[in-house]
Amino acid sequence: MVETTGDQRLAKGARSRAAIARHAADVASVEGLNGVSIGRLAIDLGISKSGIATLFKTKEALQLAAVGAGRQVFLDRVVTPSLREPRGLPRLRALIDRWLTYITEPPFPGGCFRTAVLAEFESRPGAVRDAVAADHDDWLRFLAGEIGKAQEGGAWSGRDAVEFAFELDAVVGAANTAHQLGDEARVALARRLVDRLLTPSGDAGGR
Amino acid sequence: MVETTGDQRLAKGARSRAAIARHAADVASVEGLNGVSIGRLAIDLGISKSGIATLFKTKEALQLAAVGAGRQVFLDRVVTPSLREPRGLPRLRALIDRWLTYITEPPFPGGCFRTAVLAEFESRPGAVRDAVAADHDDWLRFLAGEIGKAQEGGAWSGRDAVEFAFELDAVVGAANTAHQLGDEARVALARRLVDRLLTPSGDAGGR
Repeated sequence: MVETTGDQRLAKGARSRAAIARHAADVASVEGLNGVSIGRLAIDLGISKSGIATLFKTKEALQLAAVGAGRQVFLDRVVTPSLREPRGLPRLRALIDRWLTYITEPPFPGGCFRTAVLAEFESRPGAVRDAVAADHDDWLRFLAGEIGKAQEGGAWSGRDAVEFAFELDAVVGAANTAHQLGDEARVALARRLVDRLLTPSGDAGGR
Repeated sequence: MVETTGDQRLAKGARSRAAIARHAADVASVEGLNGVSIGRLAIDLGISKSGIATLFKTKEALQLAAVGAGRQVFLDRVVTPSLREPRGLPRLRALIDRWLTYITEPPFPGGCFRTAVLAEFESRPGAVRDAVAADHDDWLRFLAGEIGKAQEGGAWSGRDAVEFAFELDAVVGAANTAHQLGDEARVALARRLVDRLLTPSGDAGGR
């Protein structure tokens, strides 16, 4: 009985932790991770500062939790559902389509969380930059791996998968900026460019 | 004599204004424009807050001046010297080479000022976002125009110059992130990609 109560308390703490981290990611998508503070979240969520401080201790711990929450949303929205598609071109297309939807119908008020915090922390050495950079590397490696699987099927023969992943990431990142600036014509242009890049003809592939 | 003194005072004020705006751009390249405040610059530059407030009045005015200073540095380092090259492919190559040098040997401690503040303000409506967005549009229009001139010379026939400018901007922007993260392998990869994109063969151009 005591255990159960303890377990319930732990479960409740984990749920609060997740909810706070998720809101921190929302705030960061608009104002950057620097806008994420224990005091700010306490006001937004109507929780006591001490309650948040008990769960996260420091602002950096809160920022790292926001990075984790942002990563999880991307995995849930873009990566995990795409993995149900057959490996190769179908999965890669599903991945890119979900990614573009995530950009144009963002789950965060400020658009792509990763793009926002990467630009914010790329010049600030520390645990947050390391976490954001690791997440970015992880994504580019995964994308290159999926491109490689499509290449086994004959697409883009001779094209370096790592370079192709870098290019796709750069173009979709720029589409996110265009969407956030309300420039839908430029978003449409980015979609056309991505479609062309993904057309597995010798012309588009070999380049 | 009074006029002269007045002129001297105006000139001195203009010089201080420019120096403060330039330092504000340095700060923004690392910590974002939100890190730019009258108090912060007063400490950095050893000037009184009232002295800076007299010249800039508000934090937003200071941020807008930083955007102007950042833009000027880019024009001086990348655009203006490239305009000496013959129009078409030579000028475009000079432009891209200088741009990549600006990315890898940045005049700002935090790398490309534009990339940093664009990501920071893209989701925050207001005068700063408008200024940053206008600067970005201006650059993409200029780049597309130079690509168009190279196309008149026969390069990349049938390629949409606006789309090509968007793609180059996205890739070099991603190279800036890679450089700021200390990932020189990825910077080299971006250079190879840019070289390939700029190879005016039917293959690279037609895509």
